[in-house]
Amino acid sequence: MKRIVISTGGGDAPGLNAVIYALVQAAHSRDWEVYGSKSGYLGLLDTDELVRLTPDTVKDITPTGGTILGSTNKGNPFAMPVKNLAGEIQICDVSDRVMKNFKRMGFFCHIAVGGDGSLEIAHRFAKEKGMPVIGVPKTIDNDLEATQLTFGFDTAVSTATEALDKLHSTAKSHDRVMVVEVMGRESGWIALNSGISGGADVILIPEIPFDIQCVCDKIAENELHGKHYAIVVVAEGARAKDSGIIHKSDEKKEVGRQEVLLGGIGEWVADRIREIADKDTRSLVLGHLQRGGSPTTFDRLLALRFGAAAIRVAEKGEFDLMVALEGGAMTTVPLAKAVEKRKKVPLDCDKIMTAREIGICLGDFYRI
Amino acid sequence: MKRIVISTGGGDAPGLNAVIYALVQAAHSRDWEVYGSKSGYLGLLDTDELVRLTPDTVKDITPTGGTILGSTNKGNPFAMPVKNLAGEIQICDVSDRVMKNFKRMGFFCHIAVGGDGSLEIAHRFAKEKGMPVIGVPKTIDNDLEATQLTFGFDTAVSTATEALDKLHSTAKSHDRVMVVEVMGRESGWIALNSGISGGADVILIPEIPFDIQCVCDKIAENELHGKHYAIVVVAEGARAKDSGIIHKSDEKKEVGRQEVLLGGIGEWVADRIREIADKDTRSLVLGHLQRGGSPTTFDRLLALRFGAAAIRVAEKGEFDLMVALEGGAMTTVPLAKAVEKRKKVPLDCDKIMTAREIGICLGDFYRI
Amino acid sequence: MKRIVISTGGGDAPGLNAVIYALVQAAHSRDWEVYGSKSGYLGLLDTDELVRLTPDTVKDITPTGGTILGSTNKGNPFAMPVKNLAGEIQICDVSDRVMKNFKRMGFFCHIAVGGDGSLEIAHRFAKEKGMPVIGVPKTIDNDLEATQLTFGFDTAVSTATEALDKLHSTAKSHDRVMVVEVMGRESGWIALNSGISGGADVILIPEIPFDIQCVCDKIAENELHGKHYAIVVVAEGARAKDSGIIHKSDEKKEVGRQEVLLGGIGEWVADRIREIADKDTRSLVLGHLQRGGSPTTFDRLLALRFGAAAIRVAEKGEFDLMVALEGGAMTTVPLAKAVEKRKKVPLDCDKIMTAREIGICLGDFYRI
Amino acid sequence: MKRIVISTGGGDAPGLNAVIYALVQAAHSRDWEVYGSKSGYLGLLDTDELVRLTPDTVKDITPTGGTILGSTNKGNPFAMPVKNLAGEIQICDVSDRVMKNFKRMGFFCHIAVGGDGSLEIAHRFAKEKGMPVIGVPKTIDNDLEATQLTFGFDTAVSTATEALDKLHSTAKSHDRVMVVEVMGRESGWIALNSGISGGADVILIPEIPFDIQCVCDKIAENELHGKHYAIVVVAEGARAKDSGIIHKSDEKKEVGRQEVLLGGIGEWVADRIREIADKDTRSLVLGHLQRGGSPTTFDRLLALRFGAAAIRVAEKGEFDLMVALEGGAMTTVPLAKAVEKRKKVPLDCDKIMTAREIGICLGDFYRI
Repeated sequence: MKRIVISTGGGDAPGLNAVIYALVQAAHSRDWEVYGSKSGYLGLLDTDELVRLTPDTVKDITPTGGTILGSTNKGNPFAMPVKNLAGEIQICDVSDRVMKNFKRMGFFCHIAVGGDGSLEIAHRFAKEKGMPVIGVPKTIDNDLEATQLTFGFDTAVSTATEALDKLHSTAKSHDRVMVVEVMGRESGWIALNSGISGGADVILIPEIPFDIQCVCDKIAENELHGKHYAIVVVAEGARAKDSGIIHKSDEKKEVGRQEVLLGGIGEWVADRIREIADKDTRSLVLGHLQRGGSPTTFDRLLALRFGAAAIRVAEKGEFDLMVALEGGAMTTVPLAKAVEKRKKVPLDCDKIMTAREIGICLGDFYRI
Repeated sequence: MKRIVISTGGGDAPGLNAVIYALVQAAHSRDWEVYGSKSGYLGLLDTDELVRLTPDTVKDITPTGGTILGSTNKGNPFAMPVKNLAGEIQICDVSDRVMKNFKRMGFFCHIAVGGDGSLEIAHRFAKEKGMPVIGVPKTIDNDLEATQLTFGFDTAVSTATEALDKLHSTAKSHDRVMVVEVMGRESGWIALNSGISGGADVILIPEIPFDIQCVCDKIAENELHGKHYAIVVVAEGARAKDSGIIHKSDEKKEVGRQEVLLGGIGEWVADRIREIADKDTRSLVLGHLQRGGSPTTFDRLLALRFGAAAIRVAEKGEFDLMVALEGGAMTTVPLAKAVEKRKKVPLDCDKIMTAREIGICLGDFYRI
Repeated sequence: MKRIVISTGGGDAPGLNAVIYALVQAAHSRDWEVYGSKSGYLGLLDTDELVRLTPDTVKDITPTGGTILGSTNKGNPFAMPVKNLAGEIQICDVSDRVMKNFKRMGFFCHIAVGGDGSLEIAHRFAKEKGMPVIGVPKTIDNDLEATQLTFGFDTAVSTATEALDKLHSTAKSHDRVMVVEVMGRESGWIALNSGISGGADVILIPEIPFDIQCVCDKIAENELHGKHYAIVVVAEGARAKDSGIIHKSDEKKEVGRQEVLLGGIGEWVADRIREIADKDTRSLVLGHLQRGGSPTTFDRLLALRFGAAAIRVAEKGEFDLMVALEGGAMTTVPLAKAVEKRKKVPLDCDKIMTAREIGICLGDFYRI
Repeated sequence: MKRIVISTGGGDAPGLNAVIYALVQAAHSRDWEVYGSKSGYLGLLDTDELVRLTPDTVKDITPTGGTILGSTNKGNPFAMPVKNLAGEIQICDVSDRVMKNFKRMGFFCHIAVGGDGSLEIAHRFAKEKGMPVIGVPKTIDNDLEATQLTFGFDTAVSTATEALDKLHSTAKSHDRVMVVEVMGRESGWIALNSGISGGADVILIPEIPFDIQCVCDKIAENELHGKHYAIVVVAEGARAKDSGIIHKSDEKKEVGRQEVLLGGIGEWVADRIREIADKDTRSLVLGHLQRGGSPTTFDRLLALRFGAAAIRVAEKGEFDLMVALEGGAMTTVPLAKAVEKRKKVPLDCDKIMTAREIGICLGDFYRI
C-alpha cells in the first residue's frame, strides 16, 4: 500500500482544511495511506507528531477555517532554531533527520501546502535531498505569478468587502472618512478587488505610489457633490510617492530624517487626511479577520480541486512540481519557477481601468 | 453630448445593479448621458418609461439584488402580445416603434444586459434594424459558451452551498436523506459547484443521465461506514437514464406511458430513494432564493468590469458585440455567436474528476 | 465523584451543541463526570451507546448546528418499537431497563434537553420511576408557555428573514407574488417575527384564521400603489376561515367534501392567489433550512445559559424541574407544568398591533 | 390632518431606519403627515432641511444600516457652536428658533430617536419649552437602565461574535493570543455577550477591574491543557485594578506618573500579555464595524415595535415620555428618568455565573 505525507505551512488561509480533505479522500480512493505532519515539518522531525488521516478524521472539515494540522509557523528544517544544552538558541540544519524519517516511514511522496516560504523549502528538499515533493500554493494575497488564483483570496476579499459594506452606512451617518487597511503584502489585489466591490472612493495599492494630496482632492470633490463621507482602502504595502516614510518592517534600513510607520500605513493616511482635508477620520486595520473564518464556496471548490489535482500528479510519479490554475484548469509548474516571481497588479489591466472609470481615485492623479 | 440607453432583460441575477452602476459611472466619466429603459424594451416603446440615470440615481445600488430598471420579462418587441380593441391578445411586431424612439431620443448606442433570449432580440435589432447594440451577458446558470463566467453564478452557488451547510447538521441529527433541487436549466454548473463545496454525497446533473440504483447504492455505502444520512443535490435539468420520465416543461411532447414530473426532479428522486433505500427522505427546492440577495464580492466585481468594458466598446464605436470574460480579461465576441451555444459541463474536466475522487456519486456508476 | 448523564431528543434546533458545551463545562468546573446518551435514550438502553464527555470532546462545538449526541428521534422508552423473534414490530415498555442502567452507571441526575415530547417522557421517568431529572426546553417554534424564549427560535427566524430579503429583489424584478411557508407548528411566532422583520405584505398565522379574499385585496392594493409584487408569509399551521380544507396531517379525520392539503398550506395559498388575483405566483417551503446551521449569537448565549443553569439546579439537588427564562433571568418550573400548554401569539400583543399599523395584512380584514 | 416631526441623533445604530419605517407607516395608517428633520435638529433650525416622509420614501429601508435622515451629530440647540461675523465660533442657544419652526410647521409632536445625549436635549425641550416630545431609545451599548433592551445591540454583538469566530481558527493555527477590543462605553454588555457566545477565554469588562496576572494565568492554564492559543475580549471601558493607567479620553485629568492609554485598552492588554506570558499576541479594535451593517432580524423587529409604539403614545397625547421594553412588552417611562442611570452588568446575574462556570476568566481571579 502506498503511503504519503502531507503538511501545511506558513500563514493561515481559509481553504487549508478543504485541501486536506481532498488529499485524504483522493488518496483513499486509490487505497493510499495518508499521514499528516503537524506544524509544518514537525511530524517529519519527530514521528510522534505524525497523524494518520482517514476519511473519518477529515469528515466535515471542508467548511472550517484554520488547519487541522495545527500551527503553521514552526520553522525551516534547513535552518531550525534549536536550544542547546546551555539553553542558547542555535540555528541547525535538521533536514537529514527529516529525510531519514521520510524514508523510514515509507512515504513515496510529500505534498506540501504552503506559501512562497514553504514552497521554497519544499523545492530545496527536492533538489538537495531528492525528496519526491509536490507543492500546493496557498496565499490569501493572490501574489503568486505561477498560478492564476490561490484559495483563501476570495474569502479575504469577501471579509474586506463585508467590512466596507458595514462602514458605508456609519461613515455616511457621521460625515466621516473611514480608512481601512487590508492585507496583501507587496501586491494590491485584496485592496483593489474589495475596494471596487465595496464602493471605495480611494484605493491605495503598492503598485501605484500615491500622492496624499490627490487623496484629499477626491475627498474634497465628494463634498462638492454633497457626499460628506468617504471610504479609503489602503493595502498594507502601499507607499506614498516621495514621502520618505518607511514601514515598521523596514526599520533596520532606516536612515536620516525619514518618518517611521509604527501604526501602519492606514493610520498614517488617516492622520494626513485629518490634517489636510480637515475631516473627522477614523482608521481600522482588518488584520487577521482576513485570514479566518469559513472559506467561501469559491475557495472551497478551488482548494478541493488543488488537493485532488496534487494526488493525480503524485499518481503519475511526477515531482518537484506545484499544482496551479491556468486558463480555468488544473496544471503544474516546476516548483523552482513557482516561487520565483510575485504577481503584481498590472497597471493596464481592466480592473484598474474599471476602478478609474467608475470614479475611484487610485492616488496618482485627481482633478476637481 | 453623447447619449446612450441601457436595458435589463430576462430572469433576475444578482449583479444587475452593479452592471448598471458601472455603465452609468463609466459613461458619466466620459460626459455621456445615460437613460434606462424600464422593464426591458418598455422604455423604448413608450418614452414615458425612460429614466435619466445619473451617478446620484445609482449611488449605493452595487450591493443590492434585483434591478432598479424593474420587471425584466415584458416581452419581445418583434412579437409582442398586445390587446386589440376587442380585448383579444394579438402578437404584434413593434420593433419599428422601438427604433423610432431610439432615434428620436438621439441615442447612439443601446447596451442590453440579458440572457440568451434578450441577447438574441438585441442581435436581431442590430442585424435587421441597424441598431448599434452591445450585449452584456447575464445568467445565474453560467451556461453561455461565449464567456468564461457570468455574474450571478457565484451568488447562486453560494446560496446553494449555504443551504447545504445548514442541511448537513439537521440531516445528520435525524438520520435523513435530504434531496435539494437547484437551478441551472440544461447545465449542471450550479449543482456541481455547490455540491462539491457543500459536501454532497450525490450530485445529479443533466450532462450525466443518472441511474437511481447507483444513488441508492451510495446511500447504502454511507450506512456501511456509519454515516446514516446523505445529501443529494439535483440539478433541475437532471434526467434518469432510460426512465421514460418527462418534465412538466415537456408536457406537450408527452406520449404513451411516460411518467410526468409535476413536482420537479428533486421530488421524484426523493420518492425513489424513499422506496428503494427505505430511508426517511425530504426534498427541498431552493427556487428563487438562488436569484435573489446581495451579490457576492466576486459577482459585484465581475458585473462592474462587464459594465465598464461595455462602455469602452461603445466608445470605440464597435457594435453587435457582447462583452465577455476570456482568460481572466475582458474581450468581445460577436452577438450572433454569443447565444449560439449553451455551455455544458465537460465530462473530462477536473471538477468532475475531483468530485469522483473525493467520493461523490454522480449517478452513473457506484460499487459498494 | 459525581456523575451525570445528558440526552438530546426531538427535532433539531440550532443551539443544542451549545447546551451540551455548557453542561459539560459547568459540570467539569464542579469536578463532576458527564456522560452523553446517544440518540435520546439509546445510551441508557444500551450502555455501549454512552459516551464520556469532557472539555476536550466538546471544544469548538458551540457554533455548530445539530447535536453531537446524534440522531434525536429514536423513540420513547415507555413505548418503544422493538422487533420480536418473528421479525414483527412490537411496542414494549423498556423504561425499567433505562432505570437499571441509570443506577448501575451511578448517575445522580439526568439532564434531558428536548421539546414537549421529550420533556413529557422525562417527567414520566421522574414521576413513575423516581429518576432525578432536569429538563432543558428546546423548540425552534417558541411555543412553550412555560419559558419566555427557547434557543433555536432566533436562528430559525433569522434564516426565514434572510430568505425574505433574498426574495424581495427577485419578486420585484419579476412582478411576482412569492408565498413562503415557514415552520411553527400550531403557533405563528416564526411567521410573525420573520414576516415583520422581512417586510412581508401578508402574514398568515394559526391564531388568526384567514380569508383568502383579504389576502388578494391586499395584493390588489399594492398594485394600486404601483407595487406590482408581494411577499406572503404563511405559517405551516395556518388555516383558512370556513374553507373546509384539511391538512395532510389530519388525513385520518377527513370527512365529506373537504379538500386535503397535500402540498402544504403555502402551495394552497399560492394556487388561490393565482386564481383570484391573477398574479404570477410562486411558492417556497423553507423546511429544514430553519432547523440547520450555526446558531445566532443570541441563541448561543441563551443555550449556554440554559446549560449552566441546569447544572446549578442539579447542584442544589432539585429535580423534576425544567429551567426556563423568565423576566430575562434563569428560573425553574415544574416539569409537569412545562409541557402543559402551548404558547400562542396573543391577539392583543404589540407585535400584532405593529404588524397591522405598518400595513401588513394578517388575513382577517382588509379594505382597499 | 395631524403632522409630526421625527429626528435621529447621536451615534449610529443598526435599526434606525427600521424605526423611521415604522414611524412613517404607523403615522400613515392614521392619516398623519410625517416630516424628518435632517441631522438631528437641523431641520427644525432651518426648514429647508425638513423632508416629507411617505410610505414611498421609506420603502425598503428596514434592512439598511445608517439613517436616511443623515448625519447624526450636529449639535445641541441649547448650546450650538455658531460662527459669528468675525469667523469665530460662539456657543449660542438656538432653542427658541427650533420651537418657532416647530409651531410654524404645525407639528403636534416631535419623536426623537437617540441616545442619552439626544434624549436629554429632548427632555429639556419638553420641560423648558413645552415641546410635546416622545423619545425612542437608541444605543448599541445596551446601557440604558430604563429599557430592557435597545435595538442595535444584537447587531453589534453579532458582528463581534462573527469576528471572534473568524479569529479562532487563525489564532489556533498560529498559536497566538488574539486580543479584541469591543465597544460598550462604561458597560460590559457587548463584551460579555459576544465573548460568551464567541468562545472567549478571557472577557474584561468595566464592571470588574481586572488583574493582568489573572489573565496571564488563564493563558498559561490553556497551555497546560494543550491549547496554545487564546481569545481575549476587552470592553473599551475596562480598567486594570490598581494600575494607575488612564484612558486617552481622561487625558485632561491626567496626573503624576500614570500611564496614558493612547492605543486603547486592547493594545495595552496585548502588550502586557506579550511581556508577562511571552506569547505571540495580536490586538484588533473592531471599532465602527459594530455600528454598521444591516440590522439582525432581532433588531429590526425591536426597532419596528419601538417606532409603532411611539406613534401609539403620540395618539394618546402623552408626552415627555420614552418608549421602553419591559417584560417583553412595550411600555413608557418619563424622559426625565430615562437618561438618569446607566445600566451596568450586575455581578450576580446568570450571564456572569455562566461565563465563570464554562471556564471563562473575567480577570478578577484565576487559579492554575
